[in-house]
Amino acid sequence: MRLLEQLCKIHAPSGNERNLSEFLLNYIEEHKVQWKKQPVVLSGEGFQECILLVFGEPRAAIFAHMDSIGFTVRYRKQLVKIGGPVAEKGFKLVGQDAQGEIECSLKYDEEEGELLYDYEREIERGTELVFKCDFRETEETVQSCYLDNRLGVWSALKVAETLENGIIAFSCWEEHGGGSVAYLCKYIYENYGVKQAIVSDITWVTEGVRPGKGVAISMRDSLIPRRSYVEKIIAIAKESGVPYQLEVEGAGGSDAKELQHSAYPWDWCFVGAPEDNVHTPDEIVHKKDIKSMVQLYEALMKKL
Amino acid sequence: MRLLEQLCKIHAPSGNERNLSEFLLNYIEEHKVQWKKQPVVLSGEGFQECILLVFGEPRAAIFAHMDSIGFTVRYRKQLVKIGGPVAEKGFKLVGQDAQGEIECSLKYDEEEGELLYDYEREIERGTELVFKCDFRETEETVQSCYLDNRLGVWSALKVAETLENGIIAFSCWEEHGGGSVAYLCKYIYENYGVKQAIVSDITWVTEGVRPGKGVAISMRDSLIPRRSYVEKIIAIAKESGVPYQLEVEGAGGSDAKELQHSAYPWDWCFVGAPEDNVHTPDEIVHKKDIKSMVQLYEALMKKL
Amino acid sequence: MRLLEQLCKIHAPSGNERNLSEFLLNYIEEHKVQWKKQPVVLSGEGFQECILLVFGEPRAAIFAHMDSIGFTVRYRKQLVKIGGPVAEKGFKLVGQDAQGEIECSLKYDEEEGELLYDYEREIERGTELVFKCDFRETEETVQSCYLDNRLGVWSALKVAETLENGIIAFSCWEEHGGGSVAYLCKYIYENYGVKQAIVSDITWVTEGVRPGKGVAISMRDSLIPRRSYVEKIIAIAKESGVPYQLEVEGAGGSDAKELQHSAYPWDWCFVGAPEDNVHTPDEIVHKKDIKSMVQLYEALMKKL
Repeated sequence: MRLLEQLCKIHAPSGNERNLSEFLLNYIEEHKVQWKKQPVVLSGEGFQECILLVFGEPRAAIFAHMDSIGFTVRYRKQLVKIGGPVAEKGFKLVGQDAQGEIECSLKYDEEEGELLYDYEREIERGTELVFKCDFRETEETVQSCYLDNRLGVWSALKVAETLENGIIAFSCWEEHGGGSVAYLCKYIYENYGVKQAIVSDITWVTEGVRPGKGVAISMRDSLIPRRSYVEKIIAIAKESGVPYQLEVEGAGGSDAKELQHSAYPWDWCFVGAPEDNVHTPDEIVHKKDIKSMVQLYEALMKKL
Repeated sequence: MRLLEQLCKIHAPSGNERNLSEFLLNYIEEHKVQWKKQPVVLSGEGFQECILLVFGEPRAAIFAHMDSIGFTVRYRKQLVKIGGPVAEKGFKLVGQDAQGEIECSLKYDEEEGELLYDYEREIERGTELVFKCDFRETEETVQSCYLDNRLGVWSALKVAETLENGIIAFSCWEEHGGGSVAYLCKYIYENYGVKQAIVSDITWVTEGVRPGKGVAISMRDSLIPRRSYVEKIIAIAKESGVPYQLEVEGAGGSDAKELQHSAYPWDWCFVGAPEDNVHTPDEIVHKKDIKSMVQLYEALMKKL
Repeated sequence: MRLLEQLCKIHAPSGNERNLSEFLLNYIEEHKVQWKKQPVVLSGEGFQECILLVFGEPRAAIFAHMDSIGFTVRYRKQLVKIGGPVAEKGFKLVGQDAQGEIECSLKYDEEEGELLYDYEREIERGTELVFKCDFRETEETVQSCYLDNRLGVWSALKVAETLENGIIAFSCWEEHGGGSVAYLCKYIYENYGVKQAIVSDITWVTEGVRPGKGVAISMRDSLIPRRSYVEKIIAIAKESGVPYQLEVEGAGGSDAKELQHSAYPWDWCFVGAPEDNVHTPDEIVHKKDIKSMVQLYEALMKKL
């Protein structure tokens, strides 16, 4: 899990994913020689900070978002949210401005209803702060900020090792309204004719989705995927013997929003491990669910 | 109204429109020989469950959504909404899971604020339930669940009988965030150069739009169509002598949302009969308004 | 500021921008001979009411929306909002229906929670009413309804006078959900390969952005632009010596929403003068901020 820890520590809030993008490009460059199949790596001009890996003759694509939630420094000591972080008094935040590296903590002014930071000096306007990473591992679990979605990225990298045919897309802005999957899915559809997607992201432990019981296949969240495609995913999961759980929610969303609303007839399904303490510095995932996530992706990318 | 009754009874909540799609494909195949002009029928690969009928040299397109509101079974006996159904205690719901056909009723747990179903056994996760159809007809009215939008579909099929030039698009997901009109309108624009739309859907009886007073031409809802196009529609309506009413709302939406936000310069206008008891099992529409809806579409498709 | 006054007085609420579009086409036709470079003027078929001016070899595009907020007449004496106007009792509204020109005033029925107009006769359904323009100028300020965004349009026309390479896009529907930038940015990207945008619009005076302190460069609003692009904008601003202020907000939006969500990898940044009394008939902007807005745009269009 050393790689996962590295990923969780990289500063990459929505809109500023370049550090993670560069890390991944280097990682891919170094490791792809050991992979079963060499992918075409697309990035740079026309892709903003996104990365596409194209293996063989793709029929399906994995979307894993790189960005995280966080906070932007406003005026005086105010903070504005990036995405939907839980904002609890005392949470440690880190970042950097022209005056140097910053480690501060979160405050909440109840009277004004304002989020604030507590720090010895004023931080420059527009500086992004993210949760300080405290990576914890037991025999059964990993715990850290930003398992959502560094774990989805990590899982995709694991799948990359043996992938023969398929696309892996590392996307941006998922936590804050989206903005990259629209052009990624256009590019993929137009260049490879692929329109089957699996969204490699982390979901919620709930009364119906329990830790350690297997990766979750989401039948719906705030959006509803095409029924026949979800049934195909479930059939492959059943056949594969990999432990999985079916999720049904009325809220929540993912990169799938952009697929659903794109001008291309994409089918999509969210498939990901569940976590507890969502959007806090203490996100926790069961290792069994990570294992089944990788295994199910391997099966899906072969059968879809 | 036998066809309308058949349409209202088909299970096709947002995301799972295949039953209605298949029914329509069969209906079209059987009946098109009697139509004035034979359309090109586009469906299948690249269209998900959608259908396009292309007649002659099209200048305008009718969009009619096939999907309905409903409920998805969550965990224990909870339900999650598909679209925005009215959820009243005792409403009869029907569906099917691997254990067989289901007829149950709606409950509401006020303490937990939860929607539930009342049934002798637990229903499988992800099963869709829809209103049980009780189709009622009088001399003046039709009443049933899902007149929104099976009546819009029905009206489009009537218009198809005499249509010489034009497109009819049967779409998906309208009740739940959209997801098909974006690619349908791209396909139509790119292949036929058409960018004039009429949205064949059902609207609301209000203090300004009365039952029996004619089809409603909506000047706006939550979105505002291009003024000059709406004026053109109204001018054709006036000239046609067909009874109509002008609607002005600040809320509500339709397939037009996707047209408005697409990357193509579509003009659109919502034109449809008004109903009372919206999104309940008792939607009711005046037959005069159905008649004027079909007549106005016929006039519009000739003049636009 | 005679031109700005003319612009502020033109009736052009979202969806009905044709008067302003025609005014601009005439203005451009008359004045472009005095401009440093003759632009290609694109409008009409396929552009709805929008206008594109293409100068030389463009690398960046300015987006300025033409439409304004206002009200639509509903039934009886009710009004429905166009965009998000402040609605205060007594505000003067103007418009026109088949019975002639209208000047009325705004009422609010607290009991019913309804917006109403106060006028001697009933106004026709669907009629648009806008704020009556009372244009005021002092040595330091201009004040009027619709500085948002006639001032953004005005600034773009000033920039046009000396622009050698670049695109100016006059857009529609910005105040009411958007609907034109999606196709404008597609057209621009596909025909000119341009994907750098500056949004020429008016922002808010706040505790962090003060009148007279320079044009605001927004680091974020409800959406977050790509960090590296914003940094490029700020670097050019610094180098230019033009006074500017950095803005950081968690709310608000602009034409940038459509750029961010388009299927093209556009970078964007909002750059505009701040105003007080936002969305009222009394919007006020400091002349120094107008001056720095034009100057910064000139610098940006040279350096981007």
